Amino acid sequence: MPKVTVHRKAHFNSAHRLYRKEWADEKNSQVFGKCNNPYYHGHNYELIVSVKGEIDPETGFVMDLSILRGLIKSEIEDYFDHKNLNIELEEFKDLNPTAENISVVIYNKLREKISQDLELSIKLYETPRNFVTYSGE
Amino acid sequence: MPKVTVHRKAHFNSAHRLYRKEWADEKNSQVFGKCNNPYYHGHNYELIVSVKGEIDPETGFVMDLSILRGLIKSEIEDYFDHKNLNIELEEFKDLNPTAENISVVIYNKLREKISQDLELSIKLYETPRNFVTYSGE
Amino acid sequence: MPKVTVHRKAHFNSAHRLYRKEWADEKNSQVFGKCNNPYYHGHNYELIVSVKGEIDPETGFVMDLSILRGLIKSEIEDYFDHKNLNIELEEFKDLNPTAENISVVIYNKLREKISQDLELSIKLYETPRNFVTYSGE
Amino acid sequence: MPKVTVHRKAHFNSAHRLYRKEWADEKNSQVFGKCNNPYYHGHNYELIVSVKGEIDPETGFVMDLSILRGLIKSEIEDYFDHKNLNIELEEFKDLNPTAENISVVIYNKLREKISQDLELSIKLYETPRNFVTYSGE
Amino acid sequence: MPKVTVHRKAHFNSAHRLYRKEWADEKNSQVFGKCNNPYYHGHNYELIVSVKGEIDPETGFVMDLSILRGLIKSEIEDYFDHKNLNIELEEFKDLNPTAENISVVIYNKLREKISQDLELSIKLYETPRNFVTYSGE
Amino acid sequence: MPKVTVHRKAHFNSAHRLYRKEWADEKNSQVFGKCNNPYYHGHNYELIVSVKGEIDPETGFVMDLSILRGLIKSEIEDYFDHKNLNIELEEFKDLNPTAENISVVIYNKLREKISQDLELSIKLYETPRNFVTYSGE
Repeated sequence: MPKVTVHRKAHFNSAHRLYRKEWADEKNSQVFGKCNNPYYHGHNYELIVSVKGEIDPETGFVMDLSILRGLIKSEIEDYFDHKNLNIELEEFKDLNPTAENISVVIYNKLREKISQDLELSIKLYETPRNFVTYSGE
Repeated sequence: MPKVTVHRKAHFNSAHRLYRKEWADEKNSQVFGKCNNPYYHGHNYELIVSVKGEIDPETGFVMDLSILRGLIKSEIEDYFDHKNLNIELEEFKDLNPTAENISVVIYNKLREKISQDLELSIKLYETPRNFVTYSGE
Repeated sequence: MPKVTVHRKAHFNSAHRLYRKEWADEKNSQVFGKCNNPYYHGHNYELIVSVKGEIDPETGFVMDLSILRGLIKSEIEDYFDHKNLNIELEEFKDLNPTAENISVVIYNKLREKISQDLELSIKLYETPRNFVTYSGE
Repeated sequence: MPKVTVHRKAHFNSAHRLYRKEWADEKNSQVFGKCNNPYYHGHNYELIVSVKGEIDPETGFVMDLSILRGLIKSEIEDYFDHKNLNIELEEFKDLNPTAENISVVIYNKLREKISQDLELSIKLYETPRNFVTYSGE
Repeated sequence: MPKVTVHRKAHFNSAHRLYRKEWADEKNSQVFGKCNNPYYHGHNYELIVSVKGEIDPETGFVMDLSILRGLIKSEIEDYFDHKNLNIELEEFKDLNPTAENISVVIYNKLREKISQDLELSIKLYETPRNFVTYSGE
Repeated sequence: MPKVTVHRKAHFNSAHRLYRKEWADEKNSQVFGKCNNPYYHGHNYELIVSVKGEIDPETGFVMDLSILRGLIKSEIEDYFDHKNLNIELEEFKDLNPTAENISVVIYNKLREKISQDLELSIKLYETPRNFVTYSGE
């Protein structure tokens, strides 16, 4: 059967700051600029989750999108939305919440829930001008 | 010469329903939900056709986009636009018109018309939040 | 208090055909072109609902957007989404489901549910290139 | 001379929470839901500033857009970007930073700097689905 | 009958420079900056034409969009597309091709061809961040 | 460390014409159509620069986006913006400024400035409907 990739778009709004606790304030400020603001700033994150596999000849689906949509809601949107990433999410206790690191966290959370027969990749927009992609490499 | 991919965007509006005639109505309804509505629903499909190959040193083109645009119009837009996919298109007589299957049909129709020296891939948006990609694998 | 307009975006997917039963097939075809296809075609309708009024000094809201979002869901999205407008919606039994007429139907359904102290207007995209606005004039 | 409106798009990223200090926590939570999270959340605010007036017959401009762009940068982007609206901006010490109230604050800050011969209005996107407009009424 | 506004999106690509021949080069350069480049630069202009009127009770249309689309093509797209506005269009022989002035020229060309019973307005994007609106005031 | 791709969006406005000086006018006109207009036309080019590499465990960055943004500004935006590509840029003295060729020129200019440990690719929109991608193959 042909291998097709299905993509589903989602979003969440969060606050964060870029910060490395091992560094002095001056170094944090120098490296992370205004993203280091101790009072936080935030983003409307737009997320595209992509799943690649063979079309099921019975349904015509690679994966039932209502199941994928449900997974994204329970694992990602409900977990990240309207949260302060630095304070409220354990993954970022010792990990700087850059777009790169957030994309790896999202990938890992979804990878556990999606069949290993399916390839997974992630696109995460921090702003319309800055975004990242990650596929588990 | 450098290998570049050229992309061309197009669109068409169609009606469809998701449905498998071998299944009872209850199973169709359970698997396909409201997409199984027997009176049909519809979409503005957005299509991106991508063609990869070496730049022609004379023209600076991978492929003349006016030729590609013409192919997309005659093979895809004129064929799918303002149609009921289930009733009017022979490809979907026995094939469920999911986005996955539509993308394979589009790919196959274009693949016949485009030089084998050029790689082809397809992106098809069923809605701004649901889309698929296919490259002949 | 300042008067501000709040806008909320929503969407639904429907099938329809343009058709006037008092007319002969030839005239329907001549006036409505391929939109008259008897097997229907469809669209991803994008809807923006706009509500204007004074800011409530206690909440800072013109209208609680979660209430507006709920109204749009129950009155419009659940009613129009994945439906065949001509066959399944009583409003279009004798009314041609053009974007103009759909916008008036949506406006009238919402107007009943929103306080008369608030001004209402509607923007409805049939495609990214064709859309209408209506404000009850 | 013809009266034309010129529009300029800008953006900033901020953290905020919706909260009214006169209210008990329960009431804040009930009215503002997850937007009341005490650890803040955030948005990519997109702003469109619109200025209406007669075309200057010499320049062909209603207003030099490089001047308008500079004003938006100094008065709005530099002031709001990467800030916590509740903590860092004096305007929101006693004013709930809803999109409605933010739009009024932005309008008032720009209104002082733009000639009274020109009409001003503001469109502010809190998310791609929620936005407000204000024109000084 | 309800009064509805129908909108149609179109586009064209042109080259231009901002320049006033009565002025010395220094003043042109000072006022128009890099837009004054004597070798020209260019834009993908996006145009939205809006027509307001009563819905025709027979067709459900304010104006047949295929007629409006045809008018925009013959009067505007064919006239402006892939042209150098300063050199090739007589309207700009003595008129600076700012977005403001282009919108007035477009409005006047369409106003002659559209029934006086219908209100007309124009939105013209010079870039996604700079745009103008004109309604004949 | 995980390998992530970071993407940064930028834009510039330029004039160009498609033209091959070795060819007669008739052949130029026949191959390049209205893009061959000797008075030029222009575009709002949208550019996405993508850089792939391992996340730096200290910063959480693949590459500091403020450095990438600065490179794009100095190497590409300042060089291409508001220019006539055929006349003013030496790269196009003997090279037809098609989107394909422009993408290769941009790639080569950036490739020199970005560490060889990082993979580079380019997406260039000539219009919202025509775009190209290049990754150095």
